Amino acid sequence: MAHDSRRTLMAAGQAARAMALLSTDQKNQVLESFASKIEANCSTLLKANAKDLSASKGKITPALVSRLELSEAKIEMIVKMIREVRQLEDPVGKILRHMELDSGLEMIKKTVPLGVLVVVFESRPDVIPQISSLVVKSGNAVVLKGGREAQFTNSAFEKIWREAGQAFDFLPKKWLQQVAGREEFRSLLKHHDLIDLVIPRGSNALVTSVMKHTKAPVLGHAEGICAMFIHESAIIDTALELVIDAKLQAPSTCNAIETLLVQSSIAKEFFTRFQEINDEMKIQILGCPRTRKLLKGAKKASDNDFHKEFGDERLAVKVVDSLTAAIDHINSYGSHHTDTIVAQDTVACAQFFDYVDSATVLSNASTRFNDGYRLGLGAEVGVSTSKLHVRGPAGLDSLVTTKFIVTGDGQVVSDYTGTTPRPFKHKLL
Amino acid sequence: MAHDSRRTLMAAGQAARAMALLSTDQKNQVLESFASKIEANCSTLLKANAKDLSASKGKITPALVSRLELSEAKIEMIVKMIREVRQLEDPVGKILRHMELDSGLEMIKKTVPLGVLVVVFESRPDVIPQISSLVVKSGNAVVLKGGREAQFTNSAFEKIWREAGQAFDFLPKKWLQQVAGREEFRSLLKHHDLIDLVIPRGSNALVTSVMKHTKAPVLGHAEGICAMFIHESAIIDTALELVIDAKLQAPSTCNAIETLLVQSSIAKEFFTRFQEINDEMKIQILGCPRTRKLLKGAKKASDNDFHKEFGDERLAVKVVDSLTAAIDHINSYGSHHTDTIVAQDTVACAQFFDYVDSATVLSNASTRFNDGYRLGLGAEVGVSTSKLHVRGPAGLDSLVTTKFIVTGDGQVVSDYTGTTPRPFKHKLL
Repeated sequence: MAHDSRRTLMAAGQAARAMALLSTDQKNQVLESFASKIEANCSTLLKANAKDLSASKGKITPALVSRLELSEAKIEMIVKMIREVRQLEDPVGKILRHMELDSGLEMIKKTVPLGVLVVVFESRPDVIPQISSLVVKSGNAVVLKGGREAQFTNSAFEKIWREAGQAFDFLPKKWLQQVAGREEFRSLLKHHDLIDLVIPRGSNALVTSVMKHTKAPVLGHAEGICAMFIHESAIIDTALELVIDAKLQAPSTCNAIETLLVQSSIAKEFFTRFQEINDEMKIQILGCPRTRKLLKGAKKASDNDFHKEFGDERLAVKVVDSLTAAIDHINSYGSHHTDTIVAQDTVACAQFFDYVDSATVLSNASTRFNDGYRLGLGAEVGVSTSKLHVRGPAGLDSLVTTKFIVTGDGQVVSDYTGTTPRPFKHKLL
Repeated sequence: MAHDSRRTLMAAGQAARAMALLSTDQKNQVLESFASKIEANCSTLLKANAKDLSASKGKITPALVSRLELSEAKIEMIVKMIREVRQLEDPVGKILRHMELDSGLEMIKKTVPLGVLVVVFESRPDVIPQISSLVVKSGNAVVLKGGREAQFTNSAFEKIWREAGQAFDFLPKKWLQQVAGREEFRSLLKHHDLIDLVIPRGSNALVTSVMKHTKAPVLGHAEGICAMFIHESAIIDTALELVIDAKLQAPSTCNAIETLLVQSSIAKEFFTRFQEINDEMKIQILGCPRTRKLLKGAKKASDNDFHKEFGDERLAVKVVDSLTAAIDHINSYGSHHTDTIVAQDTVACAQFFDYVDSATVLSNASTRFNDGYRLGLGAEVGVSTSKLHVRGPAGLDSLVTTKFIVTGDGQVVSDYTGTTPRPFKHKLL
């Protein structure tokens, strides 16, 4: 098994070298072929998906069923998404710097694909076309591991890819491979020397488990503990709408809020109004002592509740005395993912932006805006809370690295050192 | 002790938040003050350095002594380097993207400092002024750990920093801290949650040990196994000069070559000429069977010798039949650091650039050119062989990350989803 994993990754490495050299036009041809093949095979995909749905009946939660289920509308969205990726600028081969170091000695820094990506995802079969399109456009090769519950759908997608790809001699066969079992995947992760980036798409548990089982770099975030702070200069109506959107519009997502901080000077007014609307809404409040005094029905929040990603309708609420206290709370309890301030005072907003150490900070807007599509970056690979390589929503650009290329005509360093060193020109071209 | 380490790093974190907000002008003032204070304290520094030198007499190798030793000329270079960093563009606050997402909803992606850096280095006391200048210019805070053998020199530098810094109210006291012992440093590395980047400057053993002892990201490379390939189209004279420069100009550096590959069709001619010049030169050849047939006095190379960073006058030499064989050898035996081809055939050079998977690839130039200064990037933090964040020589730009800032006036995501979603503008500004 270990031997097979190595072979899979080495084949991916070989394919990656061919992928890296494809022209933009070639990659766009492949993407268009994917899009039209999916359109043509809509009913095949729906049939395969129906098999998955009936096989997992009763075994998975309703939330997972809705993520697993394909529909004609979803497939249309997928086709549209692939065509959007085709339209995106090619991230490979961009000249970032071109310099004459000295006569006859030039340096170019340009973008090149990362190489071999390993992507693991749960339930959502639409991850396959999304990731595959980004992989093609960025000139990489990929090994995919989907959830067992989507196996028929995933195979149907792979078959479409194969068939669409056959028309193109220049496309290496092993640019996309799938592995099935958990054991096989674990074994894959051990060969970190052959993997350039692992991208887990799914629950925190999945991301944490992947990080634990590999020494390869992992793109993503383990937690999304996001906060909203209601500053004393906030318009209460706006604040209420934003709380409801950021908590309830999609509670299980990473950029939904888990923590609400309210400045003490407007706490009474805010909670009174909040009480009126939350009778219908159903946000379950876990409050600090001051919150519980002002808000009927709020349960007690433990300190630990402010460290938690609930992923449901629960919201930990705390009254704070100042902007500084809010910032300190967010920096120590949050996960540096997405945080927002509601305030009319622009100085307060600027201070929040400067001091909150998160990938994305917002003012007077829902935390739910923090994703690649909404922020106009195109299709998204994931959201990173790392400060290195990529931070925040990660798009096509996160799938490339750089290479320095130096061309000379025999230059040696010893001429440029010592007591009378030859000077460099270092002239940007 | 563990408690002290945490306190040190938390103080650094607090200082980092103040550093992040300094203006370019403020940072440049501080750097000019450093430069002139060092000029004024040249004799103090030399005295402290003399103490270190006499204390380590007989305890360290001559190579280490020469790295440890300061001189008036070296101090002049340091002053010049600090003034060069002052001239560099401020890497903080660059707007990388500005987009109108919708009316009243804007996104800015800008560069911000990483935060808390931990830098560990051996012997060379000039690392302190170099790193400190880069830390100030990039608005970060740093905890330094120098070698015991340079302790008096390091303290003298720190004292100069303190005194120079006192003139500036805006400069937080804890922007630079030093820790002394190995135990204290190990304890520091455990608190990876408070460290944004570790930068080891020194031997492979140091880098490997740091990587082993921390979960924080480490910038650098564990090995520099660099190769030169002599293609059949090479001019032999050029090739000979390049081999000598890349191997002997500074054998202990990471970008010196450890492996020489010679295409079989010109091997006889090349080795005959090489033999003539190497009688004087002293490169110690460990050769493959074909090399040993053509080159008198070559010792036997084991397979393992092609995986080794000798760091001295040894060179592992192999005859290969083709460009492809050379590329395959480099990709499997090398460390993806710096590799060069000697060839007149530009198609061969282009193929070498495309397929050799290294941070820096060169043609007809010595591998020794691969450093930040020579490639015109300004002062260097290190050379990274990671494909993520930074690859190759790492300068000021590697000490910043990005932040997304979104400003709205009450926008909620639920308006942009569902059956009649409001469209985004996504207009670049």
